[in-house]
This record gives sequence, structure tokens and C-alpha cells, in this order.
Amino acid sequence: DVVYFGVLTISDTCYKDPSKNLSGPKLVRLIIESFSNAEVACSIAPDEHAVIQEGLCRWIGSDFRVIFTTGGTGFGPRDVTPEATKTLVDRDCPHLAMVIAQASLNKTKFAALSRGICGIARNTLIINLPGSEKAVTECFATVRDLLPHAIHLITNELTLVKRTHD
Amino acid sequence: DVVYFGVLTISDTCYKDPSKNLSGPKLVRLIIESFSNAEVACSIAPDEHAVIQEGLCRWIGSDFRVIFTTGGTGFGPRDVTPEATKTLVDRDCPHLAMVIAQASLNKTKFAALSRGICGIARNTLIINLPGSEKAVTECFATVRDLLPHAIHLITNELTLVKRTHD
Amino acid sequence: DVVYFGVLTISDTCYKDPSKNLSGPKLVRLIIESFSNAEVACSIAPDEHAVIQEGLCRWIGSDFRVIFTTGGTGFGPRDVTPEATKTLVDRDCPHLAMVIAQASLNKTKFAALSRGICGIARNTLIINLPGSEKAVTECFATVRDLLPHAIHLITNELTLVKRTHD
Ligand code: NA
Repeated sequence: DVVYFGVLTISDTCYKDPSKNLSGPKLVRLIIESFSNAEVACSIAPDEHAVIQEGLCRWIGSDFRVIFTTGGTGFGPRDVTPEATKTLVDRDCPHLAMVIAQASLNKTKFAALSRGICGIARNTLIINLPGSEKAVTECFATVRDLLPHAIHLITNELTLVKRTHD
Repeated sequence: DVVYFGVLTISDTCYKDPSKNLSGPKLVRLIIESFSNAEVACSIAPDEHAVIQEGLCRWIGSDFRVIFTTGGTGFGPRDVTPEATKTLVDRDCPHLAMVIAQASLNKTKFAALSRGICGIARNTLIINLPGSEKAVTECFATVRDLLPHAIHLITNELTLVKRTHD
Repeated sequence: DVVYFGVLTISDTCYKDPSKNLSGPKLVRLIIESFSNAEVACSIAPDEHAVIQEGLCRWIGSDFRVIFTTGGTGFGPRDVTPEATKTLVDRDCPHLAMVIAQASLNKTKFAALSRGICGIARNTLIINLPGSEKAVTECFATVRDLLPHAIHLITNELTLVKRTHD
């Protein structure tokens, strides 16, 4: 069975000039290399609360199991990715966000200035990642092994969940 | 003076068949072994937001100082323990939740998929623990030494608080 | 260019007897020693939600880039600093709060009972620190090196931000 992933790059700069979007395509490659049955959609949104929400909602409403955002998690006045994500999330996943942050903190203390969250919207897991290609690679390595189990739990496929537990 | 604890097992499975409730009785034993003046009430609720709230409210309204929940903190569609807890909590205790999560993460990286929170409702501390007996034992070991001080602070018994600081 | 900092000590005890305010003046000294272009205002508020809010709002509305609070983050019934802070914050900074908590946890496990948050209100960063002089010193050491970068990002001074990245 195919599992659908979404990758939403959130950046004014990349929205104006998609050739500058390095972290989005990098994430797409990482997902495809990691999961043989993954199909990945990708898109770019500017740092606008309403446009980010629209981009996420399009995927939450359909068959997407995991959405990664990249960018817009910092302290800049236009960085509102976590706030746009929060409005859509039904259930917070604070410890997953903590584990991702700690992976970044192992590389640089400035990761403390990231504000990314994780949460479940209907039966889609949304994971905010930082905007740099390097940080995205490090963070993805941290969540990769957790994703199959997370997806099975969200979709309530108990047989598969049990298999992962063993 | 007696200190009242509540242990609420939250699980559809255990609600239907209480003989499957291992983590609840385990927690009761751990509390009684740890605190000579503890009295512990226990109950089982299904994974239903309103029923969980009712179970918690019954204890918050009376003389209970600490309520442990066990179960319902995962990614499954019926896992709503943190959401039911949040609606009752006046004051979040995010660092206590973090410390509990880290204790679990030292054992398994899948603890990142737990979503448990901690918070204070009136003068009752609520602590969400995972549903497995093993995880409950590990998490309780982490909070056990913090509880006397936490209880003294919540009830504003300043003499006892000072004694704990020394 | 001058960077304005605020230090708000939040404590019934210190409000009644300012000579007992050790952590506030300590923080002022640490800020001035760390940043040559810092100017620091300080004030004391009792543990009252509305008074804390007023104290913070006075500085958020003007040119202050960072406000440290000290005190009122514990489990006591009058400890409402995080709650008063939350009502003013537009954007949470959960990983910065986590890093500060971990710095305290390296010294004492009772730091798990602190409840301090960090967040951005308009273009002011608010950081809740514990009330003891010792804890304040440890926590400040953790954030000191992050503050120049954080301030540059909040104020959107891109040239300076880039310089910090290199
Ligand atoms: Na929150």
C-alpha cells in the first residue's frame, strides 16, 4: 500500500525563486530513499499564516499520513509556521518535537531558537522542521525510524502496530 | 497526615476486562511502598474524553493531591488522555513532563511517540503516564523523589517545603 | 545602538521588602557585564496575575528587546508567572525553555518542578527564570550566547543575522 507524504517548504525567498528551495527537494529524496512505498507531494508557501494553513489543509483533508514543513520556525517576524500548524492540530506531540530539537541541539546550541512543533491533525502527523538543508537532514534521521510505527498507530492498523512492537 | 493519590487507568481494553489492567495496580503498589502515609484510590475509564474528565474531576474536587493516569497517551485515534487532562489543568508543568519523557527515552526511542502532559488543577497535580507496566515503573522512579516537595509546594505548607530544601 | 533589557522580579516577599530581591539585581549585573550596549530597567511585582501582566506590558509596548522574569514559576498556589506571560506571548519558544530547564536540571532534579516558559510578544523576547540567585546565574549562562542572535532575528536586522550565522 502506498503511504502519502507531503513536504511543504515555507519561505518567502523560496516562494519567489523556487531554485533556492534546497531543503524541500532534499526531504523528498530522504523520504523516497527511506520508504519504498512512499509517494511524496511537495509545494512552496510564503511565510503567510493563511497560505500555510491552506497548504496544510489541502493535504490533511485527503490521504496524507505525514506532512513535513521546512522553514518558518525561527524568531524572525515573518516566522509563523508553528502558529499556523497549531491552529490545525487536534493533538500535540510535544515529546516528538523535543526529540527533534535535541537532535539539532547536538549539532548547534542555536537550535534552541527553533520553535517547531509536532501534532496530529485528523489522521495526519505534521512535523515542523527547520529551513536549512543540513538541519533537515539531521532531523529526518531522528524521526525516520519512528515513522512506520507512528503511521500504524495513527491509522489504527493494529496488526501492523503489534508487528512493530515485537 | 494522610496524602490521597488517585490512579486512573485509561484503556478501552481494561475497561471491558479489568483483569487486563496491569499498570494501574502496579502504580498503586509503587505509591504505597514509597509513601508510608499514602492512601490510593483507583479506577478505570474507557478512552472517552468526557468519561476521562469525569473520572479526574471526581478526585480534583476532593482531597487528592496527586492523580496518575496510565494509558491513552499514544498516537492511536482513541488516545485522548492528554487532551482530556489539558481541559482541567490550570497550570502546565512542562519540565516535569519533559523529565518523565526523557526517562522513557533512555529505555526506548519510541517514547518520543508518547504525548503525556503534567499540570496542576486547583491543588491537585495530574501526571499522565504511558500504559505499559514497564513504562509506568520507569516513569514512577523518576518522579518519586520529586513528589514530597511538589505536594508541599502545591498545598503551601511552607515549613515542610523548607525542610525538603535543606 | 543601545539594546534595552527588562528584569522583573516576581515575588510577594520581595515586593514587600525589596532588600530581599537578590536575583533581580544579580541578573542586571550579569546583563551589563555580558553586553556592552545593554541598558537594563528593573522592577518588582507581587505574585498577582494582573500586576505581572501590567509590568510586562509596560516594557513590551516600548523599545525593550528582552524581558527576564525571575520568580513565580514554581508549584505554589501563588506561582502564576508562566500563566501571566502566556497571555501576552504571540509565539512560543518551547525549545529555548527546554534548554534553560535542562541547564537547571544538570544542577538539581528539583528543577523539574519549575514551570517557566519563553515566548515572543510583538518584538520582545520574554524569558521566565526561577527565583533563586543561583538558578538565575546558571540559566543566564545558558542563554547569554544565544541572545545576540535571538535579538537580531526578532528585529529582522538581516545583515547582523547573517554575520552571526557565519
Ligand atoms: Na501549549
